[in-house]
Amino acid sequence: SRSINLAVIPGDGIGQEVVAEGLKVLSAVLPQDVKLETKEYDFGATRYHATGETLTDADAEALKQHDAILLGAIGDPSVPSGVLERGFLLKLRFLFDHHVNLRPSKLLPGVATPLAGEPEIDFVVVREGTEGPYTGNGGTIRKGTPHEVATEVSVNTAFGVERVVRDAFARAQARPRKKLALIHKNNVLTFAGHLWTDIFNKVAAEFPDVTTEYMHVDAATIYLVTQPERFDVIVTDNLFGDIITDLAAAVSGGIGVAASGNINPSGEFPSMFEPVHGSAPDIAGQGKADPTATVLSVGLLLRHLGYEAEAARIEDAVSADLAERTGKPARSTTEIGDALAVRVAG
Amino acid sequence: SRSINLAVIPGDGIGQEVVAEGLKVLSAVLPQDVKLETKEYDFGATRYHATGETLTDADAEALKQHDAILLGAIGDPSVPSGVLERGFLLKLRFLFDHHVNLRPSKLLPGVATPLAGEPEIDFVVVREGTEGPYTGNGGTIRKGTPHEVATEVSVNTAFGVERVVRDAFARAQARPRKKLALIHKNNVLTFAGHLWTDIFNKVAAEFPDVTTEYMHVDAATIYLVTQPERFDVIVTDNLFGDIITDLAAAVSGGIGVAASGNINPSGEFPSMFEPVHGSAPDIAGQGKADPTATVLSVGLLLRHLGYEAEAARIEDAVSADLAERTGKPARSTTEIGDALAVRVAG
Ligand SMILES: CC(C)[C@H](C(=O)O)[C@@H](O)C(=O)O
Ligand SMILES: CC(C)[C@H](C(=O)O)[C@@H](O)C(=O)O
Repeated sequence: SRSINLAVIPGDGIGQEVVAEGLKVLSAVLPQDVKLETKEYDFGATRYHATGETLTDADAEALKQHDAILLGAIGDPSVPSGVLERGFLLKLRFLFDHHVNLRPSKLLPGVATPLAGEPEIDFVVVREGTEGPYTGNGGTIRKGTPHEVATEVSVNTAFGVERVVRDAFARAQARPRKKLALIHKNNVLTFAGHLWTDIFNKVAAEFPDVTTEYMHVDAATIYLVTQPERFDVIVTDNLFGDIITDLAAAVSGGIGVAASGNINPSGEFPSMFEPVHGSAPDIAGQGKADPTATVLSVGLLLRHLGYEAEAARIEDAVSADLAERTGKPARSTTEIGDALAVRVAG
Repeated sequence: SRSINLAVIPGDGIGQEVVAEGLKVLSAVLPQDVKLETKEYDFGATRYHATGETLTDADAEALKQHDAILLGAIGDPSVPSGVLERGFLLKLRFLFDHHVNLRPSKLLPGVATPLAGEPEIDFVVVREGTEGPYTGNGGTIRKGTPHEVATEVSVNTAFGVERVVRDAFARAQARPRKKLALIHKNNVLTFAGHLWTDIFNKVAAEFPDVTTEYMHVDAATIYLVTQPERFDVIVTDNLFGDIITDLAAAVSGGIGVAASGNINPSGEFPSMFEPVHGSAPDIAGQGKADPTATVLSVGLLLRHLGYEAEAARIEDAVSADLAERTGKPARSTTEIGDALAVRVAG
């Protein structure tokens, strides 16, 4: 008999609320014969204030025992910027080698977009998750003086770039349009840019049926608002991926519906699934958060674990729910979760 | 009697065409008593192919003698990516200490935007121009092997950050809304991010009438498409500035109308004015390029040199021209330039 042993990290702010709905929908969609075990972990601001800990070695060991991780959101204004991000979220992405950060963008029928007209948006960003400017390399000298110098080092390896580029080519090949765009800034960041471009071109030769293009990250932001239908699969570095996936979320229905997976494709470590949005402390505890992004992240989680039919049921339920929203009064977090749970069970 | 001694760099692709119109409008707007001298320089792909040179020491010395520089665009697919960018454009920005890269965004009446509704967009980005990931620090080891490592080092100094932050505060204070947003990614790039944030907060104390906010660069892309009216003045680093000003241009009428100034505020070296767009080789030589961005860059140039009334006349002429475009057939590069020249003279 099948089972899913899930680590649940509600985290801070609205994380608690949206994760509860994600779990509700997960329970509703899973077939009877699948045994779902969940264990909740208390990472985030509360634990940090109480103990000073963000993620201990013992925590990491405990998380490793799970099949996957569902994360709400981490971050609170009471904690200095960077402490929880570097100490928990990025630490986990690096420790568990989440090198494929998968972020689909699809503008579903009936969903509002800030763009004029009715753009067709259906692409997926494969963001590198373990290198680039996110490594934490760098430092500060003469801190706080007029002669302070602060550096940030973007580290890019052939190993790290090639594996994520291959992953993106395989995803592009499996999609009907078979298009892949590399986004970088190789005319300025020439060292890293040439590494990315050379490897991209080398791997492209092995995927002759995939149509490729290269685009500078600045130009990409223009296309994302003027011709988003142009994109099918995008592969890019950690920082550019961070920036363009927020923009992609904004144009394709907002961060209320943007899901993501921090994936370790080999399965050596558990993958982690989380909404793209943050902890939104301004609306926390009010039942105002939209749990859809978390529910869609549960869909990505199920697909990653091989539950393709269940993942599709979640996506269909979300599509149907969003299509009926226009003109209706806003619902609470639990009302949306309940509605989705009913749909996936039905 | 007054005079302007201008270096003109048409550059590659559509650069030639748009600069011709920029000069036409400049001649038309200047009062009779101002003597305009121009000297054309042949930087760009043609010279590079002929001589292998991008910008020699002698070139830099010659350019230094001018009051200002008007640049069309540099870049051509026949030159490897990065050669002209690093060898000419960035070299000049660094040599002439163009640390204030000024990029206004204003959605003028009658101008199409990819955004729905009728957003009010009127902000200016102060992009740092001489530091950050643009310094060219970094390198490659084991190039072309499976063990290649490529690094890019973002260099940030208290000196460099403070002067551009001060410039931005002064600009914010001089505008009616008096708002300034710092855009960075201080939760991940903690070394550089803390330097920027600390200096921003320190300088803010000297400008109590300026309302400030901090925003991560990823979140900023969301606001630029969902609430662009939120922004008044933005200050940010070189790379984030590159990315968000292309997005800003896209939402406020397109890169056909986006102007920029690479400014050396002390006047020790000549400042350089250029459209945000590139050389667009695909439409070069066809009279299809919109010279408006170059004409607006001439406006920034005039304001920098103290010709405030003339700068305002150019902006008014562009506003009037844009307001009348809707529904009319597209005009050629020279037709638009002629129309603007007539308006500024009128
Ligand atoms: C919270 C932050 C560290 C994170 C990132 O920059 O990756 C977030 O913006 C994201 O996109 O998941
Ligand atoms: C051409 C390139 C080097 C340049 C930059 O990145 O600064 C351009 O994109 C710009 O914004 O002026």
